[in-house]
Amino acid sequence: MSTEFPHIPTPDAQAHREAVARHLTLTKPAGSLGRLEELGVWVAACQGQCPPRPFARPRVVVFAGDHGVAAHGVSAFPAEVTGQMVANFLTGGAAINVMAAVAGATVRVLDLGVDTDAEFPEQVTAHKVRRSSGSVDRVDALTDDEVYAAIAAGRAIADEEVDGGADLLVAGDMGIANTTPASIIIAALSGSEPVAVVGRGTGIDDQAWMRKAVAIRDGLRRARRVSANPVALLRTVGGADIAAMAAFLAQAAVRKTPVILDGLVSGAAALVAEELAPGASEWWVAGHRSVEPAHALVLEQLNLTPILDLDLRLGEGTGAIAALPLVTMAARTLAEMSTFTDAGVTEG
Amino acid sequence: MSTEFPHIPTPDAQAHREAVARHLTLTKPAGSLGRLEELGVWVAACQGQCPPRPFARPRVVVFAGDHGVAAHGVSAFPAEVTGQMVANFLTGGAAINVMAAVAGATVRVLDLGVDTDAEFPEQVTAHKVRRSSGSVDRVDALTDDEVYAAIAAGRAIADEEVDGGADLLVAGDMGIANTTPASIIIAALSGSEPVAVVGRGTGIDDQAWMRKAVAIRDGLRRARRVSANPVALLRTVGGADIAAMAAFLAQAAVRKTPVILDGLVSGAAALVAEELAPGASEWWVAGHRSVEPAHALVLEQLNLTPILDLDLRLGEGTGAIAALPLVTMAARTLAEMSTFTDAGVTEG
Repeated sequence: MSTEFPHIPTPDAQAHREAVARHLTLTKPAGSLGRLEELGVWVAACQGQCPPRPFARPRVVVFAGDHGVAAHGVSAFPAEVTGQMVANFLTGGAAINVMAAVAGATVRVLDLGVDTDAEFPEQVTAHKVRRSSGSVDRVDALTDDEVYAAIAAGRAIADEEVDGGADLLVAGDMGIANTTPASIIIAALSGSEPVAVVGRGTGIDDQAWMRKAVAIRDGLRRARRVSANPVALLRTVGGADIAAMAAFLAQAAVRKTPVILDGLVSGAAALVAEELAPGASEWWVAGHRSVEPAHALVLEQLNLTPILDLDLRLGEGTGAIAALPLVTMAARTLAEMSTFTDAGVTEG
Repeated sequence: MSTEFPHIPTPDAQAHREAVARHLTLTKPAGSLGRLEELGVWVAACQGQCPPRPFARPRVVVFAGDHGVAAHGVSAFPAEVTGQMVANFLTGGAAINVMAAVAGATVRVLDLGVDTDAEFPEQVTAHKVRRSSGSVDRVDALTDDEVYAAIAAGRAIADEEVDGGADLLVAGDMGIANTTPASIIIAALSGSEPVAVVGRGTGIDDQAWMRKAVAIRDGLRRARRVSANPVALLRTVGGADIAAMAAFLAQAAVRKTPVILDGLVSGAAALVAEELAPGASEWWVAGHRSVEPAHALVLEQLNLTPILDLDLRLGEGTGAIAALPLVTMAARTLAEMSTFTDAGVTEG
């Protein structure tokens, strides 16, 4: 099974130039929409056309999976919550469901590695790789074959979405203890010490924080040996959900589809995706800055400036979808505002 | 004509408490929606009910007016642009029109003091006070009677909106050179030096910046003598648009209707409104942090933390409406997310 991605194209330079020029013709002082102007230009470049189209089908895919390390007390919630939350996504009761509805996006949830006996609909489990993962502080998370399967899944999911008309993608996460492997991956790929990446996750107390710090320290020791090889890294300290998400983010770039990144877990997947498919990050913007300390390392490493900074730490794609209306405004102002000439407004 | 506002009630403490408690029952780690949780609690308190209602009619009112000081070269645009932009709002081509459509809000534009021969529809000019204003660096902006008329207009506009079903309000501005009187008002009410408040407005060059700095210095000298009296301050260095906006913001609080503040000009009006109606600021949140340096003084003075920081400096209400989807998400997550009990999710 191949884990190679084709060469990633850059967003369209001509559309980028046209968008920059078009902004100067619109009825507002030059540059006065600040970051929204940059985002509009980025959307035009990703779409390869100026003015950009309004998004027809913004889409959140939630990658759910359990993590063996949850058994070692690194989360405030028991592992059974992962499967319970998958059910909650399916009935529309989670934060991402409500927020996506406001932003005009739809939500798809996929069980990549949930450790549950619950019977989810076939479309939820169609890409399932396994139940849970090895506890990354002591054993490999996955086998090589499982990594390959997860990468194939992530790639197929992105293809399904783009073929289905999705023109803006968000990768959300759901998995109790998933900030532990995510933090290890970020530390490994940014060359950071364990203490720089240990966060409070779902809101752990000091005892759990110490257990998590130990797990991250031990996992990072194992991860550093393989950090130059993204497949080996996913096998050693990843998980089916994170591996699939990384491939999804890489494949979105292959398919020239813009992505809004969420927080810590999507950030860890993004770092791996940039290793799998260098240049993919040009197709991404960072929706927000998470409370999790390791997320700052992701933003720095990928050279991304977050749109929002609202002390979010929920995951599910919420920090990305919170930024979607702003990206939509950015695209639509560039496309729909009057020009000075059309409106008969004197230029400054 | 009275410029007294009734006592401003505080948002409902009981609904506030219920909202804080409800957040703990929703299917997410406690506090994980960060600022969105605080905003949801604020909406519930303003509405006096938990769960809060979704906004039925969010509304932007753009207060347009010219400023005599524009004749002294303090803006990058000629004064005729104010009237031209009013026409642009009416045909839907301005940034605020496009952004409000994304956010689910409607826009009303009012000519309070535009210096134009253009014939606007009657509903646009219904509250017009005068054409332009005195150049605030040397003469009074308005007469006392004009201040009274503008305050009555702002109050009536807020009443019309709330009576018409508006349940969230934004005050936008349009007026070439309006950052000059706004900056003077902010300096006067925050006890700041001129150099601390002089910004680039629509994007002025260094020559215009120096002219603007002189105008602000001279205007501030005049303003300081009357800064303890909001009516005298509006007369001396305000304008019909800013005076009406101040009354609108105060009356919104009287009518217990939440407001998202925009940037510099709405900030200046907000400082005056808080003088006219102490406590009104509890009914406001700051949509964003403007590029304009004086806006930071407004946020500090009113003790408001901006939701966004996107280098916006357009006005029209754009920085407020950019934040509206987040306030909507805040209200709707609080109202619509499943509880742990309902969703059968184990609590942490």
